[in-house]
Amino acid sequence: MADQRRRDERRTRLSPDERRAQLVAIGVQALADHSLEELTIEHLSQQAGVSRGLLFYYFGSKQGFHREVVRAARDGLLRATEPDLDLAPLDRLHATLSNLVRFVREHEDTFFSLVRGAASGDREVREVVQQARALQMERLRVVCEELGIPDTAMLRMTLRSWVAFAEETLVDGALVSERSPEELVDFLERTLFAVVPVIDPAYGAHLRPDVATSS
Amino acid sequence: MADQRRRDERRTRLSPDERRAQLVAIGVQALADHSLEELTIEHLSQQAGVSRGLLFYYFGSKQGFHREVVRAARDGLLRATEPDLDLAPLDRLHATLSNLVRFVREHEDTFFSLVRGAASGDREVREVVQQARALQMERLRVVCEELGIPDTAMLRMTLRSWVAFAEETLVDGALVSERSPEELVDFLERTLFAVVPVIDPAYGAHLRPDVATSS
Repeated sequence: MADQRRRDERRTRLSPDERRAQLVAIGVQALADHSLEELTIEHLSQQAGVSRGLLFYYFGSKQGFHREVVRAARDGLLRATEPDLDLAPLDRLHATLSNLVRFVREHEDTFFSLVRGAASGDREVREVVQQARALQMERLRVVCEELGIPDTAMLRMTLRSWVAFAEETLVDGALVSERSPEELVDFLERTLFAVVPVIDPAYGAHLRPDVATSS
Repeated sequence: MADQRRRDERRTRLSPDERRAQLVAIGVQALADHSLEELTIEHLSQQAGVSRGLLFYYFGSKQGFHREVVRAARDGLLRATEPDLDLAPLDRLHATLSNLVRFVREHEDTFFSLVRGAASGDREVREVVQQARALQMERLRVVCEELGIPDTAMLRMTLRSWVAFAEETLVDGALVSERSPEELVDFLERTLFAVVPVIDPAYGAHLRPDVATSS
């Protein structure tokens, strides 16, 4: 096995870290056409042209490999939707939603697998996806706070629920019914601005661009 | 094994169908304290006081057992929230949401497991949960149709997204932050009435009780 490993590594002249990153990248790419369940060590071994032994050496188990792949896919999504803190809150929200919709368009199957990765039998994989949701909620909460909407349990419940709403919209609208990106961004923005004032109608004024930018 | 089975069955004098139903019921009950992953044949065998062989005889495999348990839990939820077609659309919606919130209160861990059952590695289990969501969406669509809101792809996307929203609200509001049932019903109703008019502001009038009942 050590011989096989040496052969594997010599073939492409990568450092162990580079090799590991390459294998994870192949896994993320494979997520585009395969569910997590289908991403077996055998499959990756064929795709990457390396031995199963090397894969076990790097990831320990299929679960270990899945966790790294889902983590890498999630980090790709979070990087692509990183809020630009130089922008005013509502502009930043608009830019983040635009980036999110673009990411879903460009990596639609990865996004789909990621949302469905929440539907994994593996608790750690689910937690990786839950962390991404929690961070998206937190980004929205910061926008609300800057707009003068107080941080309450009701606000957090609303934002968390809206993140689930948006995920479903993106799966449905971007991947199934092929809405245009502008239409989706507009729909997401307006549904968010519709549900937050359910907590307190006064919040409606904070979320209207004309009012917010004039304050 | 045949002997063991005869002993099992003699002990409680149930017909095979009754016995099977009883085992599924024990599984649904166990969902209250355990994730689907933890519901093993061993666990059920201990709980029900029957042999592992009998369980395999009835359900074939752990997956077979899980599917029946999730199906039974889903049917319980759908029965509890069955719309009363004698009621006017908005009253029916209100009653359905009240029943939903009551179900979640009374079977909170089952509901939690059911929502998380969407997070199962087993494709068939996920489909069972997806069917429940599709039916909830359809019930909402019928209410909208009766209120004069046309059945479009946009409406379906909105309702499907709102079902995901509501699920998150129920997990968060009923199970985590302990909102009152009335508060939750009111919140759910008002967020639904807030997002549907995002499609077309004219729909807002259809969803206001005073306008709808006067028509």
